[in-house]
Amino acid sequence: MKAFNYYAPTEIIFGCGKVQEIGSIAARYGKKALLVTVPEFSAVKELYAKVKKSLIDNGLEVVHFDGVIPNPTTDVVTEGANIAKSSGVDVVIGLGGGSSMDTAKAIAVETTHPGTAWDYNCHTSGPTSATLPIIAIGTTAGTGSQCTQCAVITKTSEQDKSAIWHRNIFPKVAIVDPEVTATMPKSVTAQTGFDAFCHNFEAYLSVNTNPLVEVMAEDAIKIIKEYLPKALENPNDMEARSKMAWADTLGGFTNSNAGVTLPHGLGMQVGGHAPHVSHGQALAIIYPQFTRYTCAWAIEKFAKVGRILNPALNELSDQEAAKAACGAIDDFLKKIDLWIGFKDVNVTKEQIRQIADDGQVLGDYLNNPRVATIDEMYEVLMNCYERKE
Amino acid sequence: MKAFNYYAPTEIIFGCGKVQEIGSIAARYGKKALLVTVPEFSAVKELYAKVKKSLIDNGLEVVHFDGVIPNPTTDVVTEGANIAKSSGVDVVIGLGGGSSMDTAKAIAVETTHPGTAWDYNCHTSGPTSATLPIIAIGTTAGTGSQCTQCAVITKTSEQDKSAIWHRNIFPKVAIVDPEVTATMPKSVTAQTGFDAFCHNFEAYLSVNTNPLVEVMAEDAIKIIKEYLPKALENPNDMEARSKMAWADTLGGFTNSNAGVTLPHGLGMQVGGHAPHVSHGQALAIIYPQFTRYTCAWAIEKFAKVGRILNPALNELSDQEAAKAACGAIDDFLKKIDLWIGFKDVNVTKEQIRQIADDGQVLGDYLNNPRVATIDEMYEVLMNCYERKE
Repeated sequence: MKAFNYYAPTEIIFGCGKVQEIGSIAARYGKKALLVTVPEFSAVKELYAKVKKSLIDNGLEVVHFDGVIPNPTTDVVTEGANIAKSSGVDVVIGLGGGSSMDTAKAIAVETTHPGTAWDYNCHTSGPTSATLPIIAIGTTAGTGSQCTQCAVITKTSEQDKSAIWHRNIFPKVAIVDPEVTATMPKSVTAQTGFDAFCHNFEAYLSVNTNPLVEVMAEDAIKIIKEYLPKALENPNDMEARSKMAWADTLGGFTNSNAGVTLPHGLGMQVGGHAPHVSHGQALAIIYPQFTRYTCAWAIEKFAKVGRILNPALNELSDQEAAKAACGAIDDFLKKIDLWIGFKDVNVTKEQIRQIADDGQVLGDYLNNPRVATIDEMYEVLMNCYERKE
Repeated sequence: MKAFNYYAPTEIIFGCGKVQEIGSIAARYGKKALLVTVPEFSAVKELYAKVKKSLIDNGLEVVHFDGVIPNPTTDVVTEGANIAKSSGVDVVIGLGGGSSMDTAKAIAVETTHPGTAWDYNCHTSGPTSATLPIIAIGTTAGTGSQCTQCAVITKTSEQDKSAIWHRNIFPKVAIVDPEVTATMPKSVTAQTGFDAFCHNFEAYLSVNTNPLVEVMAEDAIKIIKEYLPKALENPNDMEARSKMAWADTLGGFTNSNAGVTLPHGLGMQVGGHAPHVSHGQALAIIYPQFTRYTCAWAIEKFAKVGRILNPALNELSDQEAAKAACGAIDDFLKKIDLWIGFKDVNVTKEQIRQIADDGQVLGDYLNNPRVATIDEMYEVLMNCYERKE
């Protein structure tokens, strides 16, 4: 067996209604909590109130920073960190999608370190253990951020999307409450659900994968194949929401231990150069060409995933099934209404050139079974410009 | 989905030769390390020297407590803790089988707490976060102790075997180096390997199981079925040793998250009343009757495990396969040369009476799909007195 490390220290509190436990959990870490969210809107009003009440009932003082934006920027992080510093909080709670959880992580770093959170990103030695304790409550089921050491942020001045990736930003606790994901609109369910698929599939393919990541990822892919369409069909299907919340959490474990590969690396650059495109959309756009670019380099794994998505592939040889897996993933994208190209989300060919040129800034592409040159990245991306059918 | 918690904070460093990294890892936690082992004997001489050298090369001072005994007692723990206190160690390293790792955990508690480690056992609120950091290096592949919050100790004065079970004694790091397990004699390979089977199978059956424990346990059972016989056949088969070391680690994760059930609860009492019987032997003795007592209460799971052990059971209905699983487990015990009764290890019928009478002292039996009365425990155990065939 190959050598590997495995580390997943986040405590998972899973179950419908578990968000109520936030107060007793946060009380382990101090007396004053910074709650980090997007601005209040009708669907989350009740949730925000419930979380605050639980914190207050457990003797905590709550400071609410509700300035999170999608694809969060360094400016937003600094705004939150300044509030955390001036109010002297003990613990930071990220409540929302990946943006809120990632902003919370970055604030937990910036509050207790010189400079800004950006100074501790993945190109540095990272933040120290002075980082404030982080608690994550995901309201989407896709980013896995509730149990990863990753916080994606964009440097405001340079449209440079990067990440802090360090063991000191693993949340201490993740509350995974499927009920709070039921507020997601259909498009967000699809995009974040596909992101969960990608975390698991890419960690499974990664040259840094390991035997535990493999069994987790296979299980997650089975779950997503069955339950993402159900969650889209009936947003209040709590069994489907629960299964997706769990597959998402598995995606956090797999991603944090084996990394992601080419599509995520390119997807990050899409987020940097075209921040109006959601992360899930970027992945959906790139996947049909990524799979064809990669499948011959990971035949056994593509065959296995293809057979999960389409059991008819059991009749084929591994080689044939691996090739057919690309079509099976296309079909899945169509089923969840994410069969899109860059043109559909107003990304220009000039932007695609820039995205490709920055495709090796982050190391994710090195995890892919086939390592792409900039030219190959450009070709993959250009083939995603327009989707027919 | 049912609610559940999952917590497995131990960092796993897996791979042949990884024991060399002990020095750099221990250096994270301080300057002085207590190394906890059984007394030196020829098979481990080189290993002890290698570990000490790595520690010293990384600037650590090493204090070696080599007084560990099988089924470690409170007296032994106190002896080690006194050494740790007087020499002011920063970190405790358990190197050896379950006894050494469990003794290290108990020493890490007693060194920094009033009274003795026993005062913090599973009938109390447990040790505080003042517990010294623990690093575990397993030389067997069975106890899973390298990544659990459990330390089994016997109170010297009362032959009472109990455990500390608390999140503050999870090792910070476990080095899982398959090479160091190659020194195990055949009987220890079989007994500890079967213990790993039991951790996974019981956590799988446990009323407190969860979806991650289930996929881990199924994977571990597949591995053990295939590779334990190979490790017995050829002790230097490093692929088999690696697979077993990994299945053992999965058993630590599953056990620490879902608990074990009736056989482990009774096995602990065997250890208390007849400490000359190894833990793996006790489990092997009890299993044939435990399975028949329990199978009708967990048909789907017994069927699944039966089919892993004997694919011919795929032809049967779940109900038939569950029943046949008991025979498949018998066959596995015979294959690994553990088809034994209490009589074979000189446990008397009077001792069996005492073991049964103490069968509800620990809570493990409550995790079993069928909860046993003392009378039922006595009947199960008496049917394990003598093995025919």
